[in-house]
Amino acid sequence: MTQQSTVGAARDKLLFTPGPLTTSARVKEAMLHDVGSWHFEFNALVARIRERLLEVAAVSRGAGWEAVLLQGSGTFGVEAVFQTCIPPHGKVVVLANGAYGERMAQMLQYARIEHRMLRAPEDSEIDADALEACLAADAEVTHVAVVHCETTTGLLNPIDAIGRVSKARGKVYIVDAMSSFGGIPIDLEACGADFVVSSSNKCIEGVPGFSFVICRRKALVACEGYARSLSLDLLSQLMGFEKNGQFRYTPPTHALLAFNQALDELVAEGGVVGRNERYRCNHAALISAMGRLGFEPYLDPAIQSCIITAFRYPADPAFDFGRFYRALADRGSIIYPGKLSEVDTFRIGNIGRLFPEDMEQLVFAIEAVCRTIGIGIGAQSARVGAS
Amino acid sequence: MTQQSTVGAARDKLLFTPGPLTTSARVKEAMLHDVGSWHFEFNALVARIRERLLEVAAVSRGAGWEAVLLQGSGTFGVEAVFQTCIPPHGKVVVLANGAYGERMAQMLQYARIEHRMLRAPEDSEIDADALEACLAADAEVTHVAVVHCETTTGLLNPIDAIGRVSKARGKVYIVDAMSSFGGIPIDLEACGADFVVSSSNKCIEGVPGFSFVICRRKALVACEGYARSLSLDLLSQLMGFEKNGQFRYTPPTHALLAFNQALDELVAEGGVVGRNERYRCNHAALISAMGRLGFEPYLDPAIQSCIITAFRYPADPAFDFGRFYRALADRGSIIYPGKLSEVDTFRIGNIGRLFPEDMEQLVFAIEAVCRTIGIGIGAQSARVGAS
Repeated sequence: MTQQSTVGAARDKLLFTPGPLTTSARVKEAMLHDVGSWHFEFNALVARIRERLLEVAAVSRGAGWEAVLLQGSGTFGVEAVFQTCIPPHGKVVVLANGAYGERMAQMLQYARIEHRMLRAPEDSEIDADALEACLAADAEVTHVAVVHCETTTGLLNPIDAIGRVSKARGKVYIVDAMSSFGGIPIDLEACGADFVVSSSNKCIEGVPGFSFVICRRKALVACEGYARSLSLDLLSQLMGFEKNGQFRYTPPTHALLAFNQALDELVAEGGVVGRNERYRCNHAALISAMGRLGFEPYLDPAIQSCIITAFRYPADPAFDFGRFYRALADRGSIIYPGKLSEVDTFRIGNIGRLFPEDMEQLVFAIEAVCRTIGIGIGAQSARVGAS
Repeated sequence: MTQQSTVGAARDKLLFTPGPLTTSARVKEAMLHDVGSWHFEFNALVARIRERLLEVAAVSRGAGWEAVLLQGSGTFGVEAVFQTCIPPHGKVVVLANGAYGERMAQMLQYARIEHRMLRAPEDSEIDADALEACLAADAEVTHVAVVHCETTTGLLNPIDAIGRVSKARGKVYIVDAMSSFGGIPIDLEACGADFVVSSSNKCIEGVPGFSFVICRRKALVACEGYARSLSLDLLSQLMGFEKNGQFRYTPPTHALLAFNQALDELVAEGGVVGRNERYRCNHAALISAMGRLGFEPYLDPAIQSCIITAFRYPADPAFDFGRFYRALADRGSIIYPGKLSEVDTFRIGNIGRLFPEDMEQLVFAIEAVCRTIGIGIGAQSARVGAS
């Protein structure tokens, strides 16, 4: 009764964002327990989670892969790869067509690691041929880093083609698969990735608290002595798990309990393929309904992922994002602001415990809000046309 | 029904550890909500938590103090201070009498920051006079770093005396108050601290997920440009909060909801003074009951904190910590292994939602376990003496 009144006091707003996401009730309920981080039962849970992540990635320890969990957000995981794995005289090519590619460059600047940028416009995928030319011209490059799903726009970069170019030239290949891992099938062996990073609160649909790196053991073990930060030392983190099953430093125990439940639910949904199917249905429902209102996606459909979509502001100069956002929040839906440098957009995420009906309900709310605050939208003309 | 069977399947074991801790049901229930990390309601919660931490610290923004939250465990928070605040030619004196002092040295080695160690034996507090001599002899030192409650033993270092010496010589003063903040009153102004670090899952009794740094704004702002890691850049983290109320990168939203509830409960208990009173009662109940069984604390009572106590192994050579630990776990109590370099100890924590009766119940369980597995303990002779 008490618990119900606490939990049921108000329905949580639905999160149409790139994470933290709307998670299932059972994922959250898994956090109603305090467990000891040194205790053998918890260590067994951590070991199981590491195994299960390899299964989600469709790789195995036998084939030379490891899953390393690291406290902090996804950004900590990406930075940990750079801080741990780039040798003192290493040089990274960062492929960037959005804010998350640029963030990688920031990390390298902080760590005083040599790097060069290979940029594409925010609405274009990275060109593997351009990388080939870059690598041909600069023999100093040791590492290539790219974002798979660039959450800035929802764009999906061609990690297979980029991987082929990188591996043909013997470079270590780092993929930030933050918002795609678990929601979009990735063939790690085929794409040649050495390090793939994601986090607990993306397509696995857990709660925020840690990131994880799926990597080739050989590639990580080769980095002995390079790490520039104790907390972010991925190799030492792996050695800790192998020594006594423990995180070196206090793990987010509750987030890990939630994550294990989230992994159960991923399996129940048919794994990555099943989840991808739902996300694609969510995306299709969203695009279709938003199209009826006249909202235009920023990206060409050919490079648009099913994870998150950036929409251009409507042409009506009366459109004010802050007001729009708040009116939708009042109706129980949280959307996400844009992050583009030159075009005004807002974003709508399809991931989390959301279904096509939720996407349709969101668009009904968007339509109602536009009418209430007097934004001219294409729906009105479309509707006139249809009558 | 489903929820009850999930939650009530088994009573959680009580955690007599330095954290993660046993937390209240309401702290955990606060995590049954998904909230958007960009949403203004969440930003307001983060702002409130930062304010409330200053209140717990008995300082204020008006007097020049700030509270900066950082994703990750407490270790990430301590390392963030070093990675952000030591200038390129800075030099740190690390005062160490246990594993957490030594961990600071590890962090500085990783970051290639010059430092020197001033060690005391694990059973002795740091001597402020020795620091004075060290600072007199080495003019290159810019920073002094010490652990307040050394969780290795439970020893409490004299942070006021160390602070007086440090400030008299104009050094920046860093205090790792991980396991003491919120549970032991600290006068930040009097001790002269510039940076004080703790985490969500210690004496505030929240769940693990983030650390926090209470600091003098001037001291942090003076560090512009020094940071060696993007994720661990405390100044940039502060600027992020001030720019738009947000964490720069995904925050552990559920752990923050839990923390706000934990702060409510801290206030309800009478703040730091009230909490300290309970911890001291827990400690007194523990020491008294363990003494009846003949278990001997490692430290002299004069330097022993009420946070955690290291006990020497019993003299009986049949004592096997692993077996002892598992038998106690079977009875629902999780204790903690020792971490001393030269003496065999185990540790019992007094913090978390634990009360003197819990400490007494633990000792009953210890007595029963010793009898069951045939460990000779003083209790038997004590009991003979009393009959």
